[in-house]
Amino acid sequence: MGMIGGGKDAFIGAIHRIAANMDGQIELVCGALSMHADIAQESGRMLFLDQDRIYNTYDEMFKAEVQKPANERMDFVTIVTPNFAHFAPAMQALENGFNVVIEKPITFTLEEAQKLKQKVKETGLMLLLTHTYAGYPMVKEAKQLIKSGKLGKVRKIYVEYIQGWLSRLSEREGNAQASWRTDPSKSGKSGCMGDIGTHAAHLAEYISGLKITELNASLNIVVDGRMLDDDGAVLLRFEEGATGTLIASQVAAGEENALKIRVYGENGSLEWAQMEPNTLTVKWLDKPAEILRAGSGYTDRLSSYATHNCRTPGGHPEGYLEAFGNLYRNFALTLSAKIAGEEPKKEWLDFPSIEDGIRGMAFINNVVASNESNEKWTKYTI
Amino acid sequence: MGMIGGGKDAFIGAIHRIAANMDGQIELVCGALSMHADIAQESGRMLFLDQDRIYNTYDEMFKAEVQKPANERMDFVTIVTPNFAHFAPAMQALENGFNVVIEKPITFTLEEAQKLKQKVKETGLMLLLTHTYAGYPMVKEAKQLIKSGKLGKVRKIYVEYIQGWLSRLSEREGNAQASWRTDPSKSGKSGCMGDIGTHAAHLAEYISGLKITELNASLNIVVDGRMLDDDGAVLLRFEEGATGTLIASQVAAGEENALKIRVYGENGSLEWAQMEPNTLTVKWLDKPAEILRAGSGYTDRLSSYATHNCRTPGGHPEGYLEAFGNLYRNFALTLSAKIAGEEPKKEWLDFPSIEDGIRGMAFINNVVASNESNEKWTKYTI
Amino acid sequence: MGMIGGGKDAFIGAIHRIAANMDGQIELVCGALSMHADIAQESGRMLFLDQDRIYNTYDEMFKAEVQKPANERMDFVTIVTPNFAHFAPAMQALENGFNVVIEKPITFTLEEAQKLKQKVKETGLMLLLTHTYAGYPMVKEAKQLIKSGKLGKVRKIYVEYIQGWLSRLSEREGNAQASWRTDPSKSGKSGCMGDIGTHAAHLAEYISGLKITELNASLNIVVDGRMLDDDGAVLLRFEEGATGTLIASQVAAGEENALKIRVYGENGSLEWAQMEPNTLTVKWLDKPAEILRAGSGYTDRLSSYATHNCRTPGGHPEGYLEAFGNLYRNFALTLSAKIAGEEPKKEWLDFPSIEDGIRGMAFINNVVASNESNEKWTKYTI
Amino acid sequence: MGMIGGGKDAFIGAIHRIAANMDGQIELVCGALSMHADIAQESGRMLFLDQDRIYNTYDEMFKAEVQKPANERMDFVTIVTPNFAHFAPAMQALENGFNVVIEKPITFTLEEAQKLKQKVKETGLMLLLTHTYAGYPMVKEAKQLIKSGKLGKVRKIYVEYIQGWLSRLSEREGNAQASWRTDPSKSGKSGCMGDIGTHAAHLAEYISGLKITELNASLNIVVDGRMLDDDGAVLLRFEEGATGTLIASQVAAGEENALKIRVYGENGSLEWAQMEPNTLTVKWLDKPAEILRAGSGYTDRLSSYATHNCRTPGGHPEGYLEAFGNLYRNFALTLSAKIAGEEPKKEWLDFPSIEDGIRGMAFINNVVASNESNEKWTKYTI
Repeated sequence: MGMIGGGKDAFIGAIHRIAANMDGQIELVCGALSMHADIAQESGRMLFLDQDRIYNTYDEMFKAEVQKPANERMDFVTIVTPNFAHFAPAMQALENGFNVVIEKPITFTLEEAQKLKQKVKETGLMLLLTHTYAGYPMVKEAKQLIKSGKLGKVRKIYVEYIQGWLSRLSEREGNAQASWRTDPSKSGKSGCMGDIGTHAAHLAEYISGLKITELNASLNIVVDGRMLDDDGAVLLRFEEGATGTLIASQVAAGEENALKIRVYGENGSLEWAQMEPNTLTVKWLDKPAEILRAGSGYTDRLSSYATHNCRTPGGHPEGYLEAFGNLYRNFALTLSAKIAGEEPKKEWLDFPSIEDGIRGMAFINNVVASNESNEKWTKYTI
Repeated sequence: MGMIGGGKDAFIGAIHRIAANMDGQIELVCGALSMHADIAQESGRMLFLDQDRIYNTYDEMFKAEVQKPANERMDFVTIVTPNFAHFAPAMQALENGFNVVIEKPITFTLEEAQKLKQKVKETGLMLLLTHTYAGYPMVKEAKQLIKSGKLGKVRKIYVEYIQGWLSRLSEREGNAQASWRTDPSKSGKSGCMGDIGTHAAHLAEYISGLKITELNASLNIVVDGRMLDDDGAVLLRFEEGATGTLIASQVAAGEENALKIRVYGENGSLEWAQMEPNTLTVKWLDKPAEILRAGSGYTDRLSSYATHNCRTPGGHPEGYLEAFGNLYRNFALTLSAKIAGEEPKKEWLDFPSIEDGIRGMAFINNVVASNESNEKWTKYTI
Repeated sequence: MGMIGGGKDAFIGAIHRIAANMDGQIELVCGALSMHADIAQESGRMLFLDQDRIYNTYDEMFKAEVQKPANERMDFVTIVTPNFAHFAPAMQALENGFNVVIEKPITFTLEEAQKLKQKVKETGLMLLLTHTYAGYPMVKEAKQLIKSGKLGKVRKIYVEYIQGWLSRLSEREGNAQASWRTDPSKSGKSGCMGDIGTHAAHLAEYISGLKITELNASLNIVVDGRMLDDDGAVLLRFEEGATGTLIASQVAAGEENALKIRVYGENGSLEWAQMEPNTLTVKWLDKPAEILRAGSGYTDRLSSYATHNCRTPGGHPEGYLEAFGNLYRNFALTLSAKIAGEEPKKEWLDFPSIEDGIRGMAFINNVVASNESNEKWTKYTI
Repeated sequence: MGMIGGGKDAFIGAIHRIAANMDGQIELVCGALSMHADIAQESGRMLFLDQDRIYNTYDEMFKAEVQKPANERMDFVTIVTPNFAHFAPAMQALENGFNVVIEKPITFTLEEAQKLKQKVKETGLMLLLTHTYAGYPMVKEAKQLIKSGKLGKVRKIYVEYIQGWLSRLSEREGNAQASWRTDPSKSGKSGCMGDIGTHAAHLAEYISGLKITELNASLNIVVDGRMLDDDGAVLLRFEEGATGTLIASQVAAGEENALKIRVYGENGSLEWAQMEPNTLTVKWLDKPAEILRAGSGYTDRLSSYATHNCRTPGGHPEGYLEAFGNLYRNFALTLSAKIAGEEPKKEWLDFPSIEDGIRGMAFINNVVASNESNEKWTKYTI
C-alpha cells in the first residue's frame, strides 16, 4: 500500500494506517504524505518507510512505483487528502494500473465521480470507498436481516447522524479539521450533509437495499459566520413506497458521533447505533425484542457476513477501527484472490465502491437542490 | 369529581380514575359513564357510586348536581369520551359552573376550542387538559433547565413519538381503541398526528418555551384500507430561530410508546424519553454529561417543579400513572386554594389548560394543511 | 382500611395510602396515626377521616371498630410503625377479628413472628406482608419463567440491594428515617441486612422457588459511630445445589435504590433491576437475548401473573407505587372473594404473607449468627 | 517481535498479533509458533515470516536470534502458550537477553513466578504481562480518579467477571479452548479463578490502588465431570479497611464477557463495564452522576493516562483490541525510549509487569487455600 496525504498530524491518514495494519495482510511501503516536501519526508521516516520510497509528490510516486517489478511495487494506493484533491491522484493511479482506496466523499463534484467510474470500468481495477460504518458486523447483519424478508416489507427508515464538535466557530480558532470541512473551496457545496449526511444516506440505502427516490431537505447554517451548512434535516421517499427521515447536525452540543438507524418492516424492526456497535436490536410486532450480538455463539442466527467481519468472541467489544479494518481486509482479500486468479467469497466483495461514491455525490447535489427549492419534493437524480 | 364517559372496558377512563385517586384528595362521586344506560348503570355500581348519582346522560347529571349544595356537589367533571364528544359536555359543564378536566385533543375542531376558550374566560372556571407527559417531574425539570439559560439559546429540537400498535388494520379486527381513533367522524381530520403528534408538539413547545412558527409536513397512510394518517414527519421552525423535526408513527412495528425529546442549546443539550422517565440526561459541550434523577438527594440541583411532582425518593421509579396523577393533583391543589381563597403556588399552576388545547387543535390544522400543500413551508396559524 | 402509625411526615405510611387508594377498591376509614395524640388528630383531619374515627391509640381503635356492624367497620388494619412496634398491634388486630397488613420486617424478633403465625392459623384471618418488590409484574414473570423450567435447573443466583443514603452519619443530623433504622432498640439486631437485605433474600427465594440452606455472611459498620451494620455480603447455598451471593449496602455513595437480581439456569438466565422494572431480560445460551416487557402485546409469551398485575399497555411505565398497589389490590381481591364466599384466583393469592415474614426474621438471625461465627458456613435454621 | 506459540487456530496468539500490529511500531519477525514442526512452518508462512526465521522450537529460535546483530534480532518475544508452558521459554528469553511479553497467568505456579521475578531483576530486562483490561483508557481514568482522592477514601469494591461459555461440558466436545483451560495439568490448580478471577482481582487492585489482605472464598464445579472450578465467589478485605466481593463464573448461561467493577468512596463512586468500555460512570453523593467518555473533548477533566491511550475522538468506539494494543504500544514506547537512552513518560510505564504476575499467582493460591478451609477468613500471603 502507498499513501497520498496523511502526513503527521493528519487525522484520517493515521486511522487508515491502523485499519490497514490491523490484520497483518497489508504493509505501507511508500507514500507521498504531504504537499510540503519537508513534512512528506519527516512523516515517511516516522512511518519507517524506506528512504527511496518517501516521495514528495504523488506524480513522482506513480512514476517510480510503476517502474518496479509487479511483486515489489505497491498493490494499491490510499488517497486521504481533503475532498478537492481526491480526483486527480485517483485518476492517475488508475491510469498507472494501481487499485485505489479513497476517503469519502469520493470526489469534489459528481462529474468527477462519473469520470472516475468510467475509468474504473475501463481499467478493471478495484476501488474501495471508505464508508466506514458499512464495515461493522452488525450493520452487515442488519442488511442481511432485511434481505431475508423476516421483518417484512420495509415501511419506515429513520437515520440520524448527530455531532456537536462544530457548535462553535472552531474553524476560526485554528482547528484544522474544522477549517477545511467548512470551506466550500475544499469541501464542496455542502458541509454537514457532505461530511456526515452522506454517511447516513449510505447507511440507509445499504441496510434497507432501497434507493432514495425523492427528498425534501432543509439545511441550516446555525453558527454565525460559517460558510456551509452545519445542520439539516431531510424527509425521504424510497423505492417500493418506504418513507423516512434523515437528520444530520454538527452543532448538537454534547453529542459525540451519534450515528443511528432504525428500519421498520411490517413484522418488526431493527435498530443500530454506532456508539454501541456490537449490538443489533430487533423488535418484533408479536414477540419479545431480541438482542443480536456480534461474535456471539448462536452462529446459526447470525449471517456469514456478520461472523466473517468479527475477530473476537462475543463480549470483546470491537469498534470503529475494526470496522475500518474490515473494509481494508475485505478489499485486500478480494485483491489477493484476484491476483491469485481465485474467486473471492461473497462476504469479501461486500465493501463500498465506485457506485456508492456516485450516489454520495448525487445525494449532496440533490439535498442542496432541494434545500434551494420552494417545492416540497425534489426528485433524486444522478 | 364526576365523570362523563369512561364506562367499564373504556381504557382512558380507568386511567383517569387511578390518577385522580392516587393522592387521596379527589373522590369520584358521580358519573354519566356511558351513552348506553345499562353500561352507565353497571359501571357506576362497579365504581361504588351512590345509586342516585349514577346518571344515564350528562345532561341529567349537570341538572341534578347543580341543584346540590356547594359542598355536596361535584367540584369538577372529567370528560373522557371520544374526541367528537368533548365539546358539548364541556360547554354545558362550564355553563353550569363546573370546572372541567378534558382528555386531549380538547375538541373536534379548532372552532370548538376557540368557543371553549371564550367560555372559560367568561366563567373564570378552571380547565385541565390532560397532556399527561407534561406531568412528569423530569419534563418539568427540562423546562426549567431551558428557562434557566444554562444550556444557552435553543438551536435544535428533535421530538419523536413512535408506536407500533396500528401496524395492522386492527380497526377491522374489533380493536375498539383502534376503531374510533382511525375514524375521521370520531377522531377528527388527522389520525396519528392528532392522537400522538399533538403530544409531541406540546412537549416540544412546553419544554423549549418556544412556539412553532412554520412547518413542512408529510403524512402517510401506511396500512392499506386505513382512513386517516397513521404516520408522518414534520420539519419545524420555532420562534427565535430554532429548528427541529417531529416524527410520529403508529406503524413502527415493535415500538411501544416511544416518546422522546432532545433539545440542543449553545452550551449543551438535554434528552428525555418517556419510557425511562425518571432520568434527564444533560450533555455539555465542555464537560461530562450529567444524569439528573427524579427524587434524588441533590435538591439544590433540581428545580422546585421537579421535586414538587415526586412522591418517593430517588430509585423508586414513578411512571405514567404518577405523571397523570400530577396533573390531577396540581389541578386539585389549585382548585382547593381557589375555593379557600388562597394563592396557589406557582408549581401547582403548571398544568396544561385551554391555551394548550387551542395550540393542539391548531397544530392538527396546520399539519394537515402543510401535508396537502406543495409549498415547502406553511406558516403556523391559529 | 384502618391505619396504625403513618402520621404526617412519616414516609412509608403515605406510600401505603397511595398504594391502597390506587385502584379505587380500598378506602381509609379510620386510624391511630401517631403515638402523639395531637399528631394523630391533625393527621387524621388532613386525611379527611371522620372525626370519630380518628383514634389516639390503636387500643382505642380496635375497641371502637369491633363494636361497629360488620359492613361498617374497617375490613383490615395496616401497621406502619417502626419494627419494634409491629407485634403488639398485629396480635390485637387478629384477636379482634381484623385482617392485617404489615410492613416488613414483620416483627422485632423471630419469636414474635412465630406467635403471629400461630395466631393467623388459629383465626383464619389474612395477613399481607408488604415485600413491595414481589408486586412488580416482571418479578412475577421471572418467578413463572423459572417455574416453567425453560431456563433449566437453577445454578446461580446473584442478588444485590445497594443504596447510598446512609453514607454519612445522618442519624445524628436529624434524619428521622435514618435515626430509627440504625437504632438497635427500634430496628432490631441488624440494620442494613434487616432493612434491605431481607428484601433481597425474599426476592431471591421468591423468584427462584428455592430456599436458602446455608450462608456465609460478613457484615460491616462502615460509618464510624453507627450502631448497626450498614453494609454486608453473604455467600449463599440454596436447595437443589444452587449457589449465590447477596450484597447489601446503604453506604454505596451515589446509589439510589439499586435492587437487582440475576438467576442462571442450565439453558439461560434472567435479569431484573428495580430501577427499570418494566423490563425482564432473558439471556439464552444458544440464541439471542430477549427483552420481555410489562404490558406488551405478546400476551402469549407473558404469564397471567404478569398481565394481571399491569394497569396500562406496554410503554407506559409503571413503577414502585403500582407494585405496592398490586400487593394491596391482590390482598383486597382475595379478601373480597373470601367475604363473598368465592374462590380467589391464583393470581390474586400471590402476595407475601406470614411465611415470608418468618423467613425474613430467620434470615436476619442467620446472617447475624454467621457474621459472628468464624466457621465459614452456617446452616440456615428457623 | 518473535512469538512462541500462537500457531494457526490458536485464539490468543492471533489477538496478540493484531494488538502488536495496530500502531505500526512493532513487526513480527520470527516465531516458534507450535510444538508441531509442520504447524509451526505452515503458520509462519501464513504470517509472511522469512523462511529462515520460522523456527520449530523456541530453543532453536533463541539460539539463532541471539547470534544476529542487535539491530536485526527480535527486540522481544511474546509467549502465548498454555499456562504450563510459560515459565521455561520466559526464563530462556531473559537469559538470552530478550525482553518478554507473556500471557497471564504468568506461570504455572507461584514459585516459577518468583524465579522469573528474580531473573527480571538480575537482567534488568522488561516484562509485559497482558492483563488486557488494564489497557482500557477508562480503566486508567478510574485509577487516576481514585488516586486523585475526589471520591474520598475507598470503602467498597465490587468486581465481577461472568461468562457463560463453559455452561456445558465443552471440553469433551472438542472445544480446544475449553479443553486445556479445564485440565489441571495444563491450566494449574484453579480453572475459573485462574482464568478470569485473576483478571478481576487485578482490576480491583489496579483501580483502587489497594491490595487484598484477606479473603473468604467458595469455589464450585457446577458442570458435572469437570476437573477444575468453573465458578466461585470471594469476599474480600483490602488495605485501609475497604471490603468487597469478587464474583467469577464461566457457567452463567447467556453471559458473554461481563467484567464489571464498582468502587465506592466516601463522596462518590465509579462504575466501569468491559462490554461498554468507553464510558466511565461517576456517581456522586451530593450531585448528579457524570458520564466520562473516552476520547471526549473535555480534556481538562480526563487524566493524561486516559487521553494517551485513545486513538480516536469521542464517539468512535475503541474496544478490546485497542486496549490490548495499548499494552503493546506502551511496552514498545518504553522499550524504544530505553534503547534510545531516553526517559519513558509516566503514561508509557503504566503496563502490567512481573509484580502483577506474582500477585496473580498468589491470588490463585490464596483463593484455593481459602476454599479448602473451614475458617471464614484466610490471610492473603505471597
